[in-house]
Amino acid sequence: MCRLLAYLGSPVSLEHLLYKPEHSLIVQSYQPREMTSGVVNADGFGVGWYHSQKDTQPFTYKNTLPIWNDINLPHLSRYVESKCVLAYVRSATAGQALDFANCQPFNYQKQLFIHNGYIQNFRQTLHRKIRSTLTPDFYENINGNTDSEHIFALLLSQAQINQHRPPEDALRMTLITLSDMAKRHQVEVSANIIFSDGNRLIASRFASTSPAPSLYWLRDHPTFPKSTIIASEPLFVGNWTACPENSIISVGEDCDIQVEQI
Amino acid sequence: MCRLLAYLGSPVSLEHLLYKPEHSLIVQSYQPREMTSGVVNADGFGVGWYHSQKDTQPFTYKNTLPIWNDINLPHLSRYVESKCVLAYVRSATAGQALDFANCQPFNYQKQLFIHNGYIQNFRQTLHRKIRSTLTPDFYENINGNTDSEHIFALLLSQAQINQHRPPEDALRMTLITLSDMAKRHQVEVSANIIFSDGNRLIASRFASTSPAPSLYWLRDHPTFPKSTIIASEPLFVGNWTACPENSIISVGEDCDIQVEQI
Amino acid sequence: MCRLLAYLGSPVSLEHLLYKPEHSLIVQSYQPREMTSGVVNADGFGVGWYHSQKDTQPFTYKNTLPIWNDINLPHLSRYVESKCVLAYVRSATAGQALDFANCQPFNYQKQLFIHNGYIQNFRQTLHRKIRSTLTPDFYENINGNTDSEHIFALLLSQAQINQHRPPEDALRMTLITLSDMAKRHQVEVSANIIFSDGNRLIASRFASTSPAPSLYWLRDHPTFPKSTIIASEPLFVGNWTACPENSIISVGEDCDIQVEQI
Amino acid sequence: MCRLLAYLGSPVSLEHLLYKPEHSLIVQSYQPREMTSGVVNADGFGVGWYHSQKDTQPFTYKNTLPIWNDINLPHLSRYVESKCVLAYVRSATAGQALDFANCQPFNYQKQLFIHNGYIQNFRQTLHRKIRSTLTPDFYENINGNTDSEHIFALLLSQAQINQHRPPEDALRMTLITLSDMAKRHQVEVSANIIFSDGNRLIASRFASTSPAPSLYWLRDHPTFPKSTIIASEPLFVGNWTACPENSIISVGEDCDIQVEQI
Repeated sequence: MCRLLAYLGSPVSLEHLLYKPEHSLIVQSYQPREMTSGVVNADGFGVGWYHSQKDTQPFTYKNTLPIWNDINLPHLSRYVESKCVLAYVRSATAGQALDFANCQPFNYQKQLFIHNGYIQNFRQTLHRKIRSTLTPDFYENINGNTDSEHIFALLLSQAQINQHRPPEDALRMTLITLSDMAKRHQVEVSANIIFSDGNRLIASRFASTSPAPSLYWLRDHPTFPKSTIIASEPLFVGNWTACPENSIISVGEDCDIQVEQI
Repeated sequence: MCRLLAYLGSPVSLEHLLYKPEHSLIVQSYQPREMTSGVVNADGFGVGWYHSQKDTQPFTYKNTLPIWNDINLPHLSRYVESKCVLAYVRSATAGQALDFANCQPFNYQKQLFIHNGYIQNFRQTLHRKIRSTLTPDFYENINGNTDSEHIFALLLSQAQINQHRPPEDALRMTLITLSDMAKRHQVEVSANIIFSDGNRLIASRFASTSPAPSLYWLRDHPTFPKSTIIASEPLFVGNWTACPENSIISVGEDCDIQVEQI
Repeated sequence: MCRLLAYLGSPVSLEHLLYKPEHSLIVQSYQPREMTSGVVNADGFGVGWYHSQKDTQPFTYKNTLPIWNDINLPHLSRYVESKCVLAYVRSATAGQALDFANCQPFNYQKQLFIHNGYIQNFRQTLHRKIRSTLTPDFYENINGNTDSEHIFALLLSQAQINQHRPPEDALRMTLITLSDMAKRHQVEVSANIIFSDGNRLIASRFASTSPAPSLYWLRDHPTFPKSTIIASEPLFVGNWTACPENSIISVGEDCDIQVEQI
Repeated sequence: MCRLLAYLGSPVSLEHLLYKPEHSLIVQSYQPREMTSGVVNADGFGVGWYHSQKDTQPFTYKNTLPIWNDINLPHLSRYVESKCVLAYVRSATAGQALDFANCQPFNYQKQLFIHNGYIQNFRQTLHRKIRSTLTPDFYENINGNTDSEHIFALLLSQAQINQHRPPEDALRMTLITLSDMAKRHQVEVSANIIFSDGNRLIASRFASTSPAPSLYWLRDHPTFPKSTIIASEPLFVGNWTACPENSIISVGEDCDIQVEQI
């Protein structure tokens, strides 16, 4: 169980987004409210963002320390301004190492990806199965050994297969594929995912059997005008909407929100 | 607020002491029960131990990661056996860096020292005052900038002044000196301390004004026969004794326990 | 012996400055050419920069890893553009810890500072003497235990005393003070320093007795037009000027260079 | 190119083995003499050792820092005494992350393994091929993404297939398999390997086309009596024997040395 945060809208400083909210991602790292497993999110963190003016690959900053102990992030957060940010604090699944290679967001070309959830007994169940379905490109893009990174590889594969269709379709196909594999091997899967190309956010709240982890969105709040935020836990008191379970949420460039059941 | 643990008795493996107890120091790092400030102890940790056969300087192992994320400690814990161990998990006071230099146990010659507590606004209040009282040797032995390390330097100074008297006296004089300084500068001090030369444990439960942090001892428990354990929180259900507030607890080589009010 | 690098001029990306040159700071970390002691600069590194548009405090990024092993710096370097940058790779003096607190650049308000050199046997010689001269503000601003950070504190003190005079004077007074102290205590001092407020660079090449470490400048090179670079070693083949020994070099906003003997 | 060190013989302290020699592994990390690629070995290190009295799994200690910057290793080295030690300092192949998962020695049950060498363009050439040959057990035992760890998995597979034959045979079959794969995919392979079960050392000096990296042994030297040392570079002036290229060297419990061509 990790805690996710994504932002799309008018340019915002990372400081305003990450540090200022009362129940910020920093606070969620040591005092989360809606964790269904684990008690803290202190196994590293990561932030990914897109350049406000230039059309380049996104940027990431990662560390294996608890987010509150990183001495560089406050500086970086004062400096970076972006229209599109993905961030997460990690609660590592037992047996999945703390290494940088396991730190999200994962990146492939223009895409950033964060995942909260798990594949039950991943190493012994779907690890090899998923790898065997991957094209060389996506196979070799995997650097760590988390279930999350393998789900991202599945998503990239589906995006390639469905390249003339909207990205929501790739995410839906990924979750269906994963769900099918999970059923066949009698394991549970949960997959709260947010991914982006810098222009849109596509998210899911999904679990194969158990209740899905929490996920919320908020649009056009006065402290974050002209924006949509998606987060595992509300960052402050406000009119947050709980994403329906087993749904896909997509946020367009004008911050309009579409929700579809999977 | 950190969590302290000290052991004196028949040789024990670190694994048995650190990992096996139900409410072990590892568990106390992410789910402590009696913290009066802070919520987790994930700002590094340290273990110090004495050789079972050889009369050499003690050994320390420290890291700035949360104790549960250290991949070497399980190996080390299987390997090390000792009659005298001091360990702690850290909850850093705001403004005191995560650096290794600030990781306890602190060591000087044969002595190891751990501290749970604080000097209020240390950098602005007693930092320079304490340093100005130190002999060159103890002044230059300070590597970090925590209140804890400066209290250790005070204790070493008192031990030098009172070298022909028992070490309890040095600890008492340190706490009185500290308390006086605190009163003069109108700041609060709390000082749960455990220090050792490998043959005895000397501890304090002390606070200048507020209630002192918790501290317990347990003697000759079946899972740790012929031993005394002192700990911020009981490691398992058992007949733990709460140390009286503002007292000094000393444990001799035969594990007998003396308690005196300060 | 560390390796220093400073840039003042038209906005440059960190990537262009840090990674692109043939004998870049990255290369100087594992294969320096003009070190007079030590063989590599792999004991951490740091970069400081000023915002191109906003008049805010500068930003720093530091790590205790060798610069070539930092996975975040390539991202940061693609993102950051600045008119004024200070960077360094560290070769730690024996006995001075690797901790973040000892990583340069050091910062106070608008000022950044980097130092290559040493005070001989610092902990046993000038450490306490320097601290005793400092006002509370500069005393408490010291977080680590390097000679470098204490020299910065001396410089800040001189800048406060000489606040109505140009910063070159503060640097000169600092070096004279240091040199006097060194003579009295019969120790050697060397101090290649670069500091900045974001608008100018002030540097010194200085040693009390031995030859001073190397330092060069280059102005208006085609790959870095409208700029001045100061560096411990030339970054590429070009018309680099060796700074005279025991001199102060100052670079103004129009990149003109003044050199004065100390 | 990394630097390897293995010891078998009468109990030795790690301090004596790792720190004391004039051209120790510590010195080889910043100033190696016989590297054929790379200039330093500062990308982490690891030590593995067996208990002198107890028949348990071996112990490892690893870090991603340069070996000279680890503050715990000096303590550990004073404490640990062993009859069988494997150690290495890493020079990471470009593109293979610094992560702990990539730190050697690798361990499986009673076996420790270190490797100096490379598979050319590993990720794009033999990575997936090797994985596809592995049984689930060895497949899931892989935590990182180095060529080294995959060669260890191949060796474990061969040891399982050849379990009734001496371990030299497993190593020979591994090198032949690797060499065949390399030929088919037109890539170079070099594999200086040392592995152990705590009772014997089995090593290879091997390269498919280019000259093999250096490897030496020394037996019964006065400073290490009743022992055999195998090392990438001689630790001190002495009667070191260069291992023949493309040979397997095995050291028995009585420290006798057998050499066979592959």
